[in-house]
Amino acid sequence: MRVGIVQFNPHVGAIQRNAERILDFIAEAKRASCDLVIFPELAVCGYTPMDLIWRPGFLTDCQRAVDRIRDESRGIAVIVGSLTAEDAHDSYNRFDVSSSTDGAALCIFNSAHVLIDGRETCRSAKLHLPTFDVYDEKRHFSPGPGASVCRIGDVTVGVNICEDLWVDDGPIGVQASLGAEWIVNLSASPFYVGKPQIRRRLVSERAEDAAVGIIYANLVGGQDDVVFDGGSLVADARGRLCFEGPRFEETLAVVELDRLTPTHVEPDDSTMQVRKALTLGIRDYVQKNGFSSVLLGLSGGIDSALVAALAAEALGPDAVSAFYLPSRFSSDTSQQDAQETARLLGIPFAEISIDDAHRAFANALPEAPEGLVDENLQPRIRGTLLMALANQTGALVLCPGNKSEIAVGYSTLYGDTVGALAPISDLYKAEVVRLARSFDGLIPESVITKPPTAELRPDQRDDDDLPPYDQLDPLLHAILERNRSRTQLIADGFAEELVDRTLRRVYANEYKRRQLPPGLKVSPKAFGTGRRMPITNGYQD
Amino acid sequence: MRVGIVQFNPHVGAIQRNAERILDFIAEAKRASCDLVIFPELAVCGYTPMDLIWRPGFLTDCQRAVDRIRDESRGIAVIVGSLTAEDAHDSYNRFDVSSSTDGAALCIFNSAHVLIDGRETCRSAKLHLPTFDVYDEKRHFSPGPGASVCRIGDVTVGVNICEDLWVDDGPIGVQASLGAEWIVNLSASPFYVGKPQIRRRLVSERAEDAAVGIIYANLVGGQDDVVFDGGSLVADARGRLCFEGPRFEETLAVVELDRLTPTHVEPDDSTMQVRKALTLGIRDYVQKNGFSSVLLGLSGGIDSALVAALAAEALGPDAVSAFYLPSRFSSDTSQQDAQETARLLGIPFAEISIDDAHRAFANALPEAPEGLVDENLQPRIRGTLLMALANQTGALVLCPGNKSEIAVGYSTLYGDTVGALAPISDLYKAEVVRLARSFDGLIPESVITKPPTAELRPDQRDDDDLPPYDQLDPLLHAILERNRSRTQLIADGFAEELVDRTLRRVYANEYKRRQLPPGLKVSPKAFGTGRRMPITNGYQD
Repeated sequence: MRVGIVQFNPHVGAIQRNAERILDFIAEAKRASCDLVIFPELAVCGYTPMDLIWRPGFLTDCQRAVDRIRDESRGIAVIVGSLTAEDAHDSYNRFDVSSSTDGAALCIFNSAHVLIDGRETCRSAKLHLPTFDVYDEKRHFSPGPGASVCRIGDVTVGVNICEDLWVDDGPIGVQASLGAEWIVNLSASPFYVGKPQIRRRLVSERAEDAAVGIIYANLVGGQDDVVFDGGSLVADARGRLCFEGPRFEETLAVVELDRLTPTHVEPDDSTMQVRKALTLGIRDYVQKNGFSSVLLGLSGGIDSALVAALAAEALGPDAVSAFYLPSRFSSDTSQQDAQETARLLGIPFAEISIDDAHRAFANALPEAPEGLVDENLQPRIRGTLLMALANQTGALVLCPGNKSEIAVGYSTLYGDTVGALAPISDLYKAEVVRLARSFDGLIPESVITKPPTAELRPDQRDDDDLPPYDQLDPLLHAILERNRSRTQLIADGFAEELVDRTLRRVYANEYKRRQLPPGLKVSPKAFGTGRRMPITNGYQD
Repeated sequence: MRVGIVQFNPHVGAIQRNAERILDFIAEAKRASCDLVIFPELAVCGYTPMDLIWRPGFLTDCQRAVDRIRDESRGIAVIVGSLTAEDAHDSYNRFDVSSSTDGAALCIFNSAHVLIDGRETCRSAKLHLPTFDVYDEKRHFSPGPGASVCRIGDVTVGVNICEDLWVDDGPIGVQASLGAEWIVNLSASPFYVGKPQIRRRLVSERAEDAAVGIIYANLVGGQDDVVFDGGSLVADARGRLCFEGPRFEETLAVVELDRLTPTHVEPDDSTMQVRKALTLGIRDYVQKNGFSSVLLGLSGGIDSALVAALAAEALGPDAVSAFYLPSRFSSDTSQQDAQETARLLGIPFAEISIDDAHRAFANALPEAPEGLVDENLQPRIRGTLLMALANQTGALVLCPGNKSEIAVGYSTLYGDTVGALAPISDLYKAEVVRLARSFDGLIPESVITKPPTAELRPDQRDDDDLPPYDQLDPLLHAILERNRSRTQLIADGFAEELVDRTLRRVYANEYKRRQLPPGLKVSPKAFGTGRRMPITNGYQD
């Protein structure tokens, strides 16, 4: 059997447009002589439509799209992810008005549709609904009734969806016992560093354990804070990986199931993977929201230089504008570094002094601004200028905050935090440096190596206010990614005073993070929808 | 049996402090000769600790607090809500690193503990886990193993938790069949307009249907975006309401179960309920976060006047500072109205012109700001001034945005949207007017009756850019609270052009809402954690 795997990049909610593009890919698969073409989880409506699914026409639109795909796909088998609904069988909370707005009277299934030559021959629903990290599936979906298999040509196939493959008690065992020769798993699995390797191990182990072949089809594309990376996989019934799709690329890959041979998978270069994820995340966020250009403040520091480099790679240098916004505390070096960065990246560069506005604010305030008050004024003036420039040019503003800063609140809300997207919000400072180096000369060495400074007062350096990043980053990683407690961190060898101060800052700055632009997730635990903490919080351990 | 119901106001995460205050209430209940004292759902850790529960020490701290309450509560029975954990029996997704950070190896139960004279005699866990609107319980908790009853003195009691009472297939039937004479329901049920009446009907119907008495004990207090309103209830086995606790007040109420008589419940004055909810929400947000004062811009318009009035009621007039920040477009009337509002409320008032800063920005920008660019500059200057004043005084900024504006994005991000809290973000303009009138002369009549204007250009009025609020508000209510589709709205009689324009604005401004301060929920469907929509979204119906 000749199988096309479409690493589809849907536009969330644009159901008709997605359906048309799915039909285009089906036509392409037919031209490539495929017997079967596979589209990932929720390809029809995109992942994830969130509470949109409860809009009254949403499910009907999805069903119409599947019907249309069914009717127009003669001479080929199609498996596609969409949504289906039934009236709720179980009783539900009919008293709470909020519950009934939230579709409580419906069972909505995250479904896979097998369409063969104009007929829907099989439909299955996701059984295991991830409700951790960025996933809210138990909010939106009901679990399917059970595992099944279907016949495509002369092959018995068990279709299941994403998490169904990940959990130990998933449907694959039952499907194998029902005679499945191949498992087709439709996925919407977002990227983080290390995830592709985990998926390879997963697919390989599951195939070997159940002694069935697995076709794993993954989405591609950016959707707000997550980036789907493709990298679809095929393993044979001995668990040997025989195919891996390209990463971060919408594509139709064709695999001949009867002629598989084990393939050698190159180890991942995690820095380049992150670069591709962020580039795709920026491009899709900007373009799917109907914009074509971005702008940002270039301070002469590494964070904004890296964001500019990523944006130029994502959108082309002409679509990125850089503004250097100096104050009386800005050094000549900063100006040169900012200008040189823009020159190397080939992006337009302009300079606007904030001193007059700064003076106007200082005069306007009844009490002269000093210390932190005066330091916060400056990024807020810059934020206001960038937003005005964005309003004038129709560009989106990019926010340069990194994960280390965001964790401890080393930023000025409504100042350096303004923007539509924060592309590097999930990179610790050390990762920022590593990624900047990957641009190989496009970011000036002096920008990469000089001591970080916010230049909000004379001779300021980040390490006046923060521990050095080579101490801070590992501690933050232990708190955020490994969820280590105060006691554990001290046992790990971190200094008690540093642990207490850092934990306090991480908890206390939740209010600031709530008002940040969305960031792009590239780690197992990013700030944003995957980490939900109360603002009002008396817990400090 | 003499029962104390404690409408407890916990501090989320402050487990030791909550436990001490619980012990104080137990002592008070003993002095009041109670046989049993009841604390609501998650009283020990507050509702809701969200992802804090996965911090390594959190569950142990909760267990220690329950142990301490058990040991120190001799001579009385106590029922208290907390958390308990077991190793996960089911298999889970051990592959995904994000899953394991999120406590996947544990079953965490939202539990009720029956403590009698130094012993824990019974423990039950919530069976039905709400995962809609603001609730994320299936993210955090596992459902309990089943319903049970216990013996307290000579009474058989079935303890269950919040949603267990709301769903039609809850444990109450089984508990009644096991001989329960009384059901004790521990709740953390947040306020919205109409909810108290729903709860009365719920408790009454459930009691009558199962022919058991129900004691319904609800939390009190503000936690970020929700306000728990107390209003605990007791119904007898014929479904007659015999007691209702005070609303929005932390209190120990004492009920003699053997001497109940049906009580007459006054109909709610929804405007005054909202006023109490917002007042409590503001006070708890400010004080639980360690602050004591707030400030805001007073424009002479009704929104900021109402927020000032609510803040003065919540914190006392001395804890509220008002700043009038005029531009060349501000009218004399606005100045007089702002000043008169401050005078009537008895709050400090100061005036700072934004003209010099406005001019400095206009000069700094390479291209002169016009139209929307110039209009957005002004609120951003005001936002920057308010934040500087907050930095100088240690006050929190309150944001005056209302639900009508926030729905259609009629606001300037980083301008009039700045603040720690948006107290009236869940009130449509008509509700703002109604609530302002309830302050009975403390807000000048001219502020209430004049046509709304942002005063960002000469002679501007809101209805230049928006439909009149008496058309917009009902349409927004139909979209947001009743989730009506485009087709349905047109069938309802709304003009097609107005529907399309409004839907487009509601969808397109999701990015702005993501960066707003938390608001206070007083409707069945507020913006914020209860309404989760993608920013990148092609759906327009």
